[in-house]
Amino acid sequence: MKIIYLDEIKKCLEKIDIIPTIEKGFVAYSTGKVVIPPIGELLFKNPPGDVHIKYGYIMDDNYYVIKIASGFYENPKLHLPSSNGLMLIFSQKTGVLCSILLDEGYLTDLRTAAAGAIVAKFLAPRIVNKIGIVGTGIQAKLQLEYLKNIINCRDVIAYGRNDHNLSQFKTEMENKGFQVTPTRTIEELTSFCNFIITTTPSTSPLLFANQIQKGTHITAVGADSPHKQELDENIFKNADVIVADSIKQCVERGEIAHAIYKKIINEKQLVELGNIISGKNMGRIDDQQITIADLTGLAVQDIQIAKSVFEAGGFS
Amino acid sequence: MKIIYLDEIKKCLEKIDIIPTIEKGFVAYSTGKVVIPPIGELLFKNPPGDVHIKYGYIMDDNYYVIKIASGFYENPKLHLPSSNGLMLIFSQKTGVLCSILLDEGYLTDLRTAAAGAIVAKFLAPRIVNKIGIVGTGIQAKLQLEYLKNIINCRDVIAYGRNDHNLSQFKTEMENKGFQVTPTRTIEELTSFCNFIITTTPSTSPLLFANQIQKGTHITAVGADSPHKQELDENIFKNADVIVADSIKQCVERGEIAHAIYKKIINEKQLVELGNIISGKNMGRIDDQQITIADLTGLAVQDIQIAKSVFEAGGFS
Repeated sequence: MKIIYLDEIKKCLEKIDIIPTIEKGFVAYSTGKVVIPPIGELLFKNPPGDVHIKYGYIMDDNYYVIKIASGFYENPKLHLPSSNGLMLIFSQKTGVLCSILLDEGYLTDLRTAAAGAIVAKFLAPRIVNKIGIVGTGIQAKLQLEYLKNIINCRDVIAYGRNDHNLSQFKTEMENKGFQVTPTRTIEELTSFCNFIITTTPSTSPLLFANQIQKGTHITAVGADSPHKQELDENIFKNADVIVADSIKQCVERGEIAHAIYKKIINEKQLVELGNIISGKNMGRIDDQQITIADLTGLAVQDIQIAKSVFEAGGFS
Repeated sequence: MKIIYLDEIKKCLEKIDIIPTIEKGFVAYSTGKVVIPPIGELLFKNPPGDVHIKYGYIMDDNYYVIKIASGFYENPKLHLPSSNGLMLIFSQKTGVLCSILLDEGYLTDLRTAAAGAIVAKFLAPRIVNKIGIVGTGIQAKLQLEYLKNIINCRDVIAYGRNDHNLSQFKTEMENKGFQVTPTRTIEELTSFCNFIITTTPSTSPLLFANQIQKGTHITAVGADSPHKQELDENIFKNADVIVADSIKQCVERGEIAHAIYKKIINEKQLVELGNIISGKNMGRIDDQQITIADLTGLAVQDIQIAKSVFEAGGFS
């Protein structure tokens, strides 16, 4: 049994391209080959915190994976990160524990960013004028980094509500080869950007239908629970392609859930990401389409990234 | 974060008496101070295996605990134990991982045996003529060992279906100060023993109502799922005190569930172990009563034993 700490996890990740692995995971999920039970949950009040247990396996695979992730929102007062987590890999043949990945939540961040890059492969307009990033946190930065190999554009407009965070985002991302224009006005972003990623924990809409131009793609990453929302539901009215990482999950939580609840779209309009990757369904077909992808996060992404790190480290 | 391997766990256990800790857990549970979500489950077909995730916390405590336990029943062919497991201890205030107890399922065995000893304290007849043990596995041995500090009797009749296992049980337990008479006839056990513990994974009854004498106590440990059963339901007809580790859990799985399903008893007749320990309900009140305790296993036992080991090791 191998315990892998964050430093070593980062070294393993240098050796691998997680995109194809995560793609395989989505395809397996959409073809019904993944067993994922309901998410386990523990809630705390004082101080407020939540813990989620995501777990499952791909049929006829070697491993099953259990991920434990927590959010304790007053941790920064104690100079601790709010998010934390670890992943456990077990043999699907014997139940023997193979590895503990003490990733502190880092692999969850990466697998989410990887899903954003996969969406871009299939849904970005051929020519991206500018990339719009809504939010300035870890996920905003990772999403942008992971686009580097998919989209040629390096011009970015970043929307945030905090000047300090915006300028930190600008500095960091310019060091990575992007040109970043910070803004506190969402219209500045929507008028120039035809590829937009939203990464905030907002509980009320930040983007509205009249702001979205023809030919724009939007990936919504922030909303992973029923009360979170970044996109006004009416945006879906004008969408030509609506992609869910999991139809089952997206009708219950995230942006799509709001649009379905308000009867602006119905479940039959949804296309699953795994089916676009496999070619069963079409992604974007012309540069006038408005496309939206809603990423709520699937345990199969955790399964795939945990396995990749374990195997890349030569521990399997 | 401290990783504690089985050897070290065993050393920590030498320093502590787990009985009062587990008792406190049962009392907290029965007074509504324990949060335990539904058990998480993964099932495998080829080879057959099951994984259970039990987790929860005592309110206003320092920690929450997640236990992962697996059973892969063809493992012995590979010279591996069928059961395996680990426990994870986290801070209830920050979500930070405090310890990983790589106990390989050992702590689950112990916390189950401890519950048997606690039951004996409150329900055993004043004078135990002979102790009857049904089954010869790890749990049969541990239950007997843990009775040593509770019951003076050292005379044991052990029932099993395999001569080799019976003679192994006899040798091991005689080395620990018991006199063991092995039998392959259940009536030999029931006619002499007024304190009986059943510890098998049987799916059909081994003990029947006409075999049970007045004044007998039975602790049923084996049945922890809806299809397992060691006691014929009619035994409950003659019972004066029926104890459940958790009423909620026992109406769904274990011996009591069968008796309720067949309408031999109803939920109102059940008494919860935590309420007997706290004195809210009576245990045995005379030597003519037939008493039964059904132990299906609670996450609060895992929480309590994990915390004790962690604290006894000086890691907290």
